[in-house]
Amino acid sequence: MESKKVSQKLLSRLPLYLNYLKGLPEWVVDVSATKIASALNLGDVLVRKDLAKISDGGRRKLGYERSSLIRDIEEFLDVNSTTCAVIVGAGKLGQALLDYNGFEKSGLRILAGFDIHPSVQKTDGGKPLYSMARLESFCHCYDVRIGIITVPAEFAQDACNSLVDCGIEAIWNFSPAHLRVPDHVVVQSENLAVSLTSLRMQLKNRS
Amino acid sequence: MESKKVSQKLLSRLPLYLNYLKGLPEWVVDVSATKIASALNLGDVLVRKDLAKISDGGRRKLGYERSSLIRDIEEFLDVNSTTCAVIVGAGKLGQALLDYNGFEKSGLRILAGFDIHPSVQKTDGGKPLYSMARLESFCHCYDVRIGIITVPAEFAQDACNSLVDCGIEAIWNFSPAHLRVPDHVVVQSENLAVSLTSLRMQLKNRS
Repeated sequence: MESKKVSQKLLSRLPLYLNYLKGLPEWVVDVSATKIASALNLGDVLVRKDLAKISDGGRRKLGYERSSLIRDIEEFLDVNSTTCAVIVGAGKLGQALLDYNGFEKSGLRILAGFDIHPSVQKTDGGKPLYSMARLESFCHCYDVRIGIITVPAEFAQDACNSLVDCGIEAIWNFSPAHLRVPDHVVVQSENLAVSLTSLRMQLKNRS
Repeated sequence: MESKKVSQKLLSRLPLYLNYLKGLPEWVVDVSATKIASALNLGDVLVRKDLAKISDGGRRKLGYERSSLIRDIEEFLDVNSTTCAVIVGAGKLGQALLDYNGFEKSGLRILAGFDIHPSVQKTDGGKPLYSMARLESFCHCYDVRIGIITVPAEFAQDACNSLVDCGIEAIWNFSPAHLRVPDHVVVQSENLAVSLTSLRMQLKNRS
């Protein structure tokens, strides 16, 4: 299917669909938008429209063939190409992300961690940790396009500036800082305090 | 201001506003919705409506007094009460979250980590790690209401069931698994693969 421009929100739902489809028992051959919607607590119409945008395989009453739908979503998400990343901030969170194997399935290869003073030379999983002085040559040498920031908030903007100076095009920010970047750089922030507050408020509204 | 029911989306923006307001230089006394909106790349009208829902302090042309707005948001978010949590999964991510001090500011105190076989008895930061056998008595003794899951996907549902059996009312899920819980339990999932895919697609659409 020809690639179309789709919304960020749709993009964020596709990995959920993929995760659900892959997690179904092996004997499940066909799957409907309604079933996916109900399993993921999403609207029926929303899922139907999403799937129609990325796959031609929908059949009246039968729904989608599971394996084709998985293939269509994966093609759309381009999971078979790999983007290289580095992490700035080699503390526990940085090392946890470096050693997490699950990102490769989503097309991300995290090559190394960088820190002002790395306390060790390798993570438990064997990923190298370097001093910041090596960041620029490393990024150029390995065509690194994504920089992941896991330093404390007060150092995050500096880390971000260093990555941008090295030609990084996308920042995945795990610090709570609000980062300023040039227009050509994409930022995605994982603000855990925001998620946490949302969870606490849901808890409060229920009790 | 009287507490009102507000949308999840508004709830998720309040910590962003708070973060921004607290990060402004000390000499900034007044702040307008327009300024906040522009700094956070949000719509002007949206921010204006959000703030009007949680604070009475808006003044025509002057905007809000910064300190009052911070106080109103904090009261609304109930950050001065504390909810206790435990983590199931004492690997690197679990230990990183246990030792991260920033959550206390958002009203979460993570008391301890639990694992089938904890490799050490304490984190570097001094938080205790226990075997799963102690989970139930610990949760009852300390009135734990939130359970954080940092085990691999294949063990996540078991961890979730154990937490629900211990009377936990909210699950903060860091595994990529889709969890099934009873109706009275709230789940918030941090699906990093979803964020990552969204970042990669933004990168792709730009290039």
